[in-house]
Amino acid sequence: MRMRVDFNYMMEEFTGAGRGIAKSALEAKRGAALAAHKAVELKRGKGWLEWMSSPYDQGEVVKEINAMAADIREKNDYFVVLGIGGSALGPSAVQKALNHIHYNDLPGDKRPGPIFYVEDNIDPERMQALLDVIDIKKTVFNVISKSGNTSETMSQFLIVKKLLEDALGADAKDHIICTTSSHSGSLLPIAKKEGYRLLFVPDGVGGRFSELCPVGLLPAAVCGIDIEELLAGAAYMDQLCRVEDMDENPALMSAVMMKIAIEMGRNISVMMPYADSLSLMSDWYAQLWAESLGKLVDNEGREVRTGQTPVKSLGVTDQHSQVQLYTEGPFDKVLTFLKVGEYRTTYTISEGCEDVPSVSFLGGHTMNELIQAERDATEYALLKLGKMSMTITLPEVNAFTVGQLLYYFQMETAYMGEFLNIDAFNQPGVEEGKNATYALLGRPGYEEKKAELDARPPKKDEYII
Amino acid sequence: MRMRVDFNYMMEEFTGAGRGIAKSALEAKRGAALAAHKAVELKRGKGWLEWMSSPYDQGEVVKEINAMAADIREKNDYFVVLGIGGSALGPSAVQKALNHIHYNDLPGDKRPGPIFYVEDNIDPERMQALLDVIDIKKTVFNVISKSGNTSETMSQFLIVKKLLEDALGADAKDHIICTTSSHSGSLLPIAKKEGYRLLFVPDGVGGRFSELCPVGLLPAAVCGIDIEELLAGAAYMDQLCRVEDMDENPALMSAVMMKIAIEMGRNISVMMPYADSLSLMSDWYAQLWAESLGKLVDNEGREVRTGQTPVKSLGVTDQHSQVQLYTEGPFDKVLTFLKVGEYRTTYTISEGCEDVPSVSFLGGHTMNELIQAERDATEYALLKLGKMSMTITLPEVNAFTVGQLLYYFQMETAYMGEFLNIDAFNQPGVEEGKNATYALLGRPGYEEKKAELDARPPKKDEYII
Repeated sequence: MRMRVDFNYMMEEFTGAGRGIAKSALEAKRGAALAAHKAVELKRGKGWLEWMSSPYDQGEVVKEINAMAADIREKNDYFVVLGIGGSALGPSAVQKALNHIHYNDLPGDKRPGPIFYVEDNIDPERMQALLDVIDIKKTVFNVISKSGNTSETMSQFLIVKKLLEDALGADAKDHIICTTSSHSGSLLPIAKKEGYRLLFVPDGVGGRFSELCPVGLLPAAVCGIDIEELLAGAAYMDQLCRVEDMDENPALMSAVMMKIAIEMGRNISVMMPYADSLSLMSDWYAQLWAESLGKLVDNEGREVRTGQTPVKSLGVTDQHSQVQLYTEGPFDKVLTFLKVGEYRTTYTISEGCEDVPSVSFLGGHTMNELIQAERDATEYALLKLGKMSMTITLPEVNAFTVGQLLYYFQMETAYMGEFLNIDAFNQPGVEEGKNATYALLGRPGYEEKKAELDARPPKKDEYII
Repeated sequence: MRMRVDFNYMMEEFTGAGRGIAKSALEAKRGAALAAHKAVELKRGKGWLEWMSSPYDQGEVVKEINAMAADIREKNDYFVVLGIGGSALGPSAVQKALNHIHYNDLPGDKRPGPIFYVEDNIDPERMQALLDVIDIKKTVFNVISKSGNTSETMSQFLIVKKLLEDALGADAKDHIICTTSSHSGSLLPIAKKEGYRLLFVPDGVGGRFSELCPVGLLPAAVCGIDIEELLAGAAYMDQLCRVEDMDENPALMSAVMMKIAIEMGRNISVMMPYADSLSLMSDWYAQLWAESLGKLVDNEGREVRTGQTPVKSLGVTDQHSQVQLYTEGPFDKVLTFLKVGEYRTTYTISEGCEDVPSVSFLGGHTMNELIQAERDATEYALLKLGKMSMTITLPEVNAFTVGQLLYYFQMETAYMGEFLNIDAFNQPGVEEGKNATYALLGRPGYEEKKAELDARPPKKDEYII
């Protein structure tokens, strides 16, 4: 069950001259591709590439998580992730991909796990809305923050901690599980003091690379997903990516394609799954791609301002929203289709309305045929106007293929970091906002930043309508 | 309760030289702005600008819709929109903005209307999933297609029609309401023959401009939203937009800002609401902006390939996903924040964890303070790196301010169409894909297109990994 990457329509021989990648341009990248592969392999499992070990070294962790998940399922009706960024996007994407599309709306006996929410914002209306629909006495909250300093998550945690303690007293501790660093940060000492169950994020696994570690594995397991299969899929993709020849290594070739596309002025990367189940994969990818590659300086500290902007799209839905722009608009984007070989359901369109041929012709076809035809047609319409696209095909959507897909994108991102000569694993641009937030909230230690903010030139009324 | 548009941080005097809009550049647009305003006013209420009458001429329609909505609420537990593009995005966005964030999860006595789904894809898994969680005998389906030729919607319709007839016999007709053209298309004769209730889409109202006509008004009314207030908000914004002076007309000034930004190479427009309730406004905006402005040719038929790519974002959530790129990455985008003055709930973060100051400092603040501080901080972090942003403030999120916001974006889009000298109201680029789909499905009359598709050069195996 191998996923495939098809980059035919990235090539000039299909798109037309000047609008795609010349074979010579591809060949010219061979040296850089080899170097990038070597650089990544040298760092394998070390530093911020510790996530490359995730498919292999979690046998015991998986057992622990599955046992914990079974216990949670038995005793609770709700499971709520408190996390933001990778701590939320990965769990959401995998749940959407591998469980029923209306999972929460299923009756309990048809649901493989508790009702599941991922809370990744601090909107007060959303906090209240969550509390309106859950019974906290029957809820486990999974607080996910490696550092324990994530303001959004820790705010939610403080609220939930108090509510649980008021409602359950000493039993409150059974309703919180912390996923955090094993040896540092603010959440660990709290968890130890309070007696919360703990899972650990390995040191060299950053938030956006954490779906295949306990951050993602616990929520998936709780909802009945086969996490061993997820990891097996990742391991399978990892094996494919050990090959240094870009013609054989799907993630490396994809990175090469995107690098050339960026050089050609394609500053936008549209991810367009043709399956509702994969819709949140685009959100997960958007973080990975944006936060890893959007960088002010290169490895030598020179100002480079790199980054390609990811755009989340959904087929066929966005054919009636975005495709007009994608086809007729500027040559500024690459589309990546996520295609599904076989959907898990076949649904036949009923016959009817025989006196209205523009409607009745649909009857007898399956929805499966229709969605596939529309994807093919969209790919063709783009090509006709000279637009580049790639197609990633999952033979079917299951834990094994989703594991491949996640790991493939992580590898592509690592290779791209090498091509751009940047640090793909930090996020320095987020610090300024964090510090300014602390200053605005009057946190001790941020007085200087507060003074800086207070010294901002005032906004002008003439520029407000 | 007037929404405000703040464009201070679009201006060079704040962003720094070369990174924002010079006052002289703004002044230089005054003539074009006057001309665009005049052009739009000349077309007011006519042709494809018939939507400019929507705030004023629907008194009787509103009464009819409110009566229909009351009847639906009384007799049913579920209300399902079958539609795609504007027929889905508008109803979804308004529902999310104005009802409980977990509306469907509320018990019946706390919900102002039936459980609500919007089905805007033809994924067979999603179709099955919907049918798994609704009781069609207690469901009204609102089939929305002006032409009645929308394959996706009509496929869903055929399926639902058969299921209802099998389950309810002659009563099936009471479970389908069609929103379509009053005098043409494929759905009208079907509805008349079957005896379905009907609502009409005015001739000059295209899908993406249809939220304030029956397309959007019925779903909103069914879910208990005050549609008269929505229209009153639109009318209020319309009055503001009658002023020809760009300094007083928020939509006109916004279009001027965006036009200059595009000329400066900002080919991306990020819409970033700081409120979960407004999250789907970004999706609605994305269609409006992309489909209206992404055009191959101008009004004289010259190839221009215009269009700015809309990106959906969400604060604070995407601070942990996209903001790294927005701050440190290329100068290729404009951010528009949607700010909320007062949220409809105040939630105080509980005190606790006093021995961990990096956590305990949050206690006692409200989530409201935190989300506002984070927005301000993000705006500031962007500015510090020379990135342009606008801020639209809704004093609060209610039907009146949401009506303003919808109408404001529609007006901005109309003005931008004038600046770009394109037809903002057609979507020719979607036709190629539609025709290719028909050909691939073997529909009679599309044999020539089928031959064209069959003559495509085959994809090469060497470009598939």
